[in-house]
Amino acid sequence: MSKGLFITFEGGDGSGKSTQIEKLKDYLEGKGFHVVLTREPGGTKISEDIREIILDSRNTEMSDMTETLLYAAARAQLVEQVIRPAVERGDMVICDRFVDSSMAYQAYGRGLGDIVWDINKNAVGDYMPDLTILLRLDPEAGMGRISGRKQDRIELSSSDFHRRVYEGYLALEKRFPDRIKGIDASRGIEEISEEIINIVQDLI
Amino acid sequence: MSKGLFITFEGGDGSGKSTQIEKLKDYLEGKGFHVVLTREPGGTKISEDIREIILDSRNTEMSDMTETLLYAAARAQLVEQVIRPAVERGDMVICDRFVDSSMAYQAYGRGLGDIVWDINKNAVGDYMPDLTILLRLDPEAGMGRISGRKQDRIELSSSDFHRRVYEGYLALEKRFPDRIKGIDASRGIEEISEEIINIVQDLI
Repeated sequence: MSKGLFITFEGGDGSGKSTQIEKLKDYLEGKGFHVVLTREPGGTKISEDIREIILDSRNTEMSDMTETLLYAAARAQLVEQVIRPAVERGDMVICDRFVDSSMAYQAYGRGLGDIVWDINKNAVGDYMPDLTILLRLDPEAGMGRISGRKQDRIELSSSDFHRRVYEGYLALEKRFPDRIKGIDASRGIEEISEEIINIVQDLI
Repeated sequence: MSKGLFITFEGGDGSGKSTQIEKLKDYLEGKGFHVVLTREPGGTKISEDIREIILDSRNTEMSDMTETLLYAAARAQLVEQVIRPAVERGDMVICDRFVDSSMAYQAYGRGLGDIVWDINKNAVGDYMPDLTILLRLDPEAGMGRISGRKQDRIELSSSDFHRRVYEGYLALEKRFPDRIKGIDASRGIEEISEEIINIVQDLI
């Protein structure tokens, strides 16, 4: 394999993405791959600056379109500066959230619709993940898991919003069945991890 | 007149926009209008935060697409929070740069083409100025005028870039002849101001 893989993790807040990303990273490193971990919004100096604006809980006046464009801007920078060069070097890139998050949160959650898809197609120049792992967890269970920690502007949105995000993810899984693999994330950590590793093994 | 007007000023760096905006503001206030002055990128707290990222001369790694999306994000916020509400109240809104700047600097200057138009149409939801004053000045004359002041990341671009921006503005003037009025900005301040006021008078 001369080129690497670009794998993204998706799911609502509290669905266990960070834990599963660490476990997949350990597995791939054990197999001798060089793994690049990154996250959205962020992952470059410019994208982290943008992240601060997006997640600042004082920015209550932010329009839904501004939010969408800021995520897309951070993403364009991350693809060009980090993801694409790493995959071309042969690395395994694992990214915590990508275009599907904008679709779930802005297109479905905020109700902006497919305009979000158009903007993101332009932003990433059609550069999409080889595989997307979707951790499916009922949003109430997910929000329950993170209730103890300090929440950012997006996490503080209403439970109706998080329900629409969840339904959005299910719709995306149907729309892109070849790329997006949904996993039942209500089970134990090890069981979920094994299922993810099985899926990834088929690609390497 | 129940609704106000949305007037934008365009032109290369050093073309005299700030001076002419002040003179038009004085004229309109003299006629009893309430005038709202704003600028791009900026004009709201969120947009000014975005402005800092765009113009930071340390951000040399910023991709052209990221730059385009950040301008569009700042613009979406400015339209929703300031421009549209003011025009609907009956105010005269004068904005220093708008969509045409993205077209001149990113579509023509950076060479991204009409993808910039698509992104901006989405960003502003087709909300465009009633009138755009384009101050036409040869880019070398313009850069000569600002050579004494500290320059930001965009102003520090090459003279070839500023030449393409200028040619882009001329192309936009041909593309949108009803909205964009080009003015010879190599003349004296008073002469230019009179011409602008004549154009605006026809609209009020």
